[in-house]
Amino acid sequence: MEVNINSIIWDAKEWVFGYNHFQMIATVSDYWRRKVLSVLYGRGTTTRAELVKATALNTASVSLVLRELIDFGVVQPLGKLNSSGGRKSEILRLNPDAAYFLVVELAGTRNRFGFVNLGGDVRFRWEQPFPERSAVSIEHVADGIHKIFDHLSSYERSRTISIGISYTGYLTPEGELTAVHLGWEKVPAAQLLEDRVQFPVFLAPDCYLKALVEHSMGIAQGIGNYIFVSMDDGLGVGCYVDGHLLMGKHSMAGEFGHITIDPAATDPCTCGKVGCLEAIASSPNIVRQYVRRTGAAPSTLSAFAVFDHARNGDRAAMEVIDRVGGYLGLGISQLVNLLAPELIVLGGDLIEGEDLFVPRIREQISRHALAPLAGSVAIETSRLGQDIALKGAASLAFRQSLLHKAALKAICSPILIFAGGAEA
Amino acid sequence: MEVNINSIIWDAKEWVFGYNHFQMIATVSDYWRRKVLSVLYGRGTTTRAELVKATALNTASVSLVLRELIDFGVVQPLGKLNSSGGRKSEILRLNPDAAYFLVVELAGTRNRFGFVNLGGDVRFRWEQPFPERSAVSIEHVADGIHKIFDHLSSYERSRTISIGISYTGYLTPEGELTAVHLGWEKVPAAQLLEDRVQFPVFLAPDCYLKALVEHSMGIAQGIGNYIFVSMDDGLGVGCYVDGHLLMGKHSMAGEFGHITIDPAATDPCTCGKVGCLEAIASSPNIVRQYVRRTGAAPSTLSAFAVFDHARNGDRAAMEVIDRVGGYLGLGISQLVNLLAPELIVLGGDLIEGEDLFVPRIREQISRHALAPLAGSVAIETSRLGQDIALKGAASLAFRQSLLHKAALKAICSPILIFAGGAEA
Repeated sequence: MEVNINSIIWDAKEWVFGYNHFQMIATVSDYWRRKVLSVLYGRGTTTRAELVKATALNTASVSLVLRELIDFGVVQPLGKLNSSGGRKSEILRLNPDAAYFLVVELAGTRNRFGFVNLGGDVRFRWEQPFPERSAVSIEHVADGIHKIFDHLSSYERSRTISIGISYTGYLTPEGELTAVHLGWEKVPAAQLLEDRVQFPVFLAPDCYLKALVEHSMGIAQGIGNYIFVSMDDGLGVGCYVDGHLLMGKHSMAGEFGHITIDPAATDPCTCGKVGCLEAIASSPNIVRQYVRRTGAAPSTLSAFAVFDHARNGDRAAMEVIDRVGGYLGLGISQLVNLLAPELIVLGGDLIEGEDLFVPRIREQISRHALAPLAGSVAIETSRLGQDIALKGAASLAFRQSLLHKAALKAICSPILIFAGGAEA
Repeated sequence: MEVNINSIIWDAKEWVFGYNHFQMIATVSDYWRRKVLSVLYGRGTTTRAELVKATALNTASVSLVLRELIDFGVVQPLGKLNSSGGRKSEILRLNPDAAYFLVVELAGTRNRFGFVNLGGDVRFRWEQPFPERSAVSIEHVADGIHKIFDHLSSYERSRTISIGISYTGYLTPEGELTAVHLGWEKVPAAQLLEDRVQFPVFLAPDCYLKALVEHSMGIAQGIGNYIFVSMDDGLGVGCYVDGHLLMGKHSMAGEFGHITIDPAATDPCTCGKVGCLEAIASSPNIVRQYVRRTGAAPSTLSAFAVFDHARNGDRAAMEVIDRVGGYLGLGISQLVNLLAPELIVLGGDLIEGEDLFVPRIREQISRHALAPLAGSVAIETSRLGQDIALKGAASLAFRQSLLHKAALKAICSPILIFAGGAEA
């Protein structure tokens, strides 16, 4: 199956409008569209006045964009708000079904595919297990995307904009992805996929995407200085400082799991070093440390089981949790000293262990971070659920699509009613 | 003495121009001026074509700004460059004497004042020693500024734009400065000073300013991902990630000196914690560690003397340097893992100890940072000299002045010839 984004994009010249209307559209700039859409995104409902304030555009520009987007069905007016000033302000929101994104979480043996709308709802997801970590090819990923696409209605297909992919690894500036857990070395993944699926493809590291969606529509919405700490098979962070998500050279910033947290620690890490924070504070290593203390069979054990043992007073499990929480808290206190965040959001398997880890992390921050910094940082757990990486990939795809001429045009196009019935 | 910036600002309405010229000036936007000036700053010489490229403005806008600034004497054409394309491109530079900044380094017992031109040259400096750390008041600072101003020529006074101040401490969003070494707690320093000196006053932490000027005109020019590590009485960093200087909540990011570098270390820190990196890696603590090992008299010893002892094979000094370099390198490797810089610039007393510390830091980065990150980071020492904080304060004052309507107008005003003789 060939998916061609060009075939589903509205073309201004072929669309029938009255002269004035066409003229008006011709004067709306992509820059205004980008600004208005990025403010509308993730905000739930808003008003024209709020949009003017948040975009820093003038009222006329915002009105031009809104007239177009409301006409097209991309923005929905939800009625009037009673305001004290006499004039009623119109409540506006993005039509959550005005655009869709195909998303992929490249997690090695357990790759996930999903279909996410503009409102951030995962419409459906699908998991492709692999017997071996290194058996994943670009063809498998393209097949997974095609499988999802085949299940879509004509309407959904017509509003599918782009593809967002979450990875763990390194991307060169030339777009070549090295992902050890997939057995990929310098694979030009986006380009190879674009050849096979004909949608724009955007990739980013999974921790960045989790931080991004938490900032767009989660607990960190609108918070300029915050850090997302994600622990599962590995440990990583996505750091917002002064409203920017830190990327660093080759998008490699955030290797929190590989800081040497204690020069005396000898825990071996998958990276080849010893004493990495991830070699202590990650789910497989929680199991490892418990097994070493108790001789339990590792195959029957999960990190969650160790959490439960600790809750039930199992001494070895309590020791492990104390060690893991202590080092994790020490590491987080270093982030607090270096980046001065106002909020730390814990994600991944830390959510399940919130009761065990949060008090220990707080204790360590009080002990190891400078007082004015320690005193003003909040700790929360993510509430975006297990699909956070898929939601993050959709957030990425949306944001990058705003900068992609054809994709932006596809978002800002009239919603057509298909024979199959539109859901909008 | 009262200094009033308003009295020396050119007022468009009072200035005599031909009609066309005035019209042209009226259409030059402050946005264009800001863009062009910020690209010209720190660049040495440039051409019109380079300016168009770097500002992303269109050619007409750049030409309008340049025509104005060349007419005013703020930008100087230095002749034609032979280019292969036939047309010769004009070489341009900022007139280094088109603007001056009064600068202050609030360092406690040793406050420094200076006068810096647009080219970053410290025209003169003056140090005000205080018998006690906590004896410094806003009046002392204002007096120091007035002393400098009194020595200026009429020309220099007419082109003095604003004041830049380097501090160590915390600034609330309301502008209240807490600086323990000055005995200041929540002092609205900028406001109090502006009342006394009538210039716009801009403040930033000293490490940020060092990082800023290194990025503007030093070894890190144009490098988006780099970290300035400064060691003297304390230890701090200024971090550029993705082209942004990290500030964090209340401009408190960069407390590198207060990360707990080893949970087993018991070195006491001035902040009240133990095991802080600064409690090991700072000049007074280098002396402290040497004294503890040898019983030498601390009053006769400097960190530089310990460096020399180590170079001469003194065992205790070599142990201290090895310990300091080891922990400093471990800390820097954490910065490398977290922020993915391409360059580390060492400043302060580390410059004097370059031969001792750089190899040890490299070794630690190779050992503790992830291979793709460790392999691509360079280490250099700053070459901006002892006045780096003053130069940095001038860089801050320049940048902030671009955003300050009256100060920008003062920069973009015709250079007048005074009876005393202009130096331009």
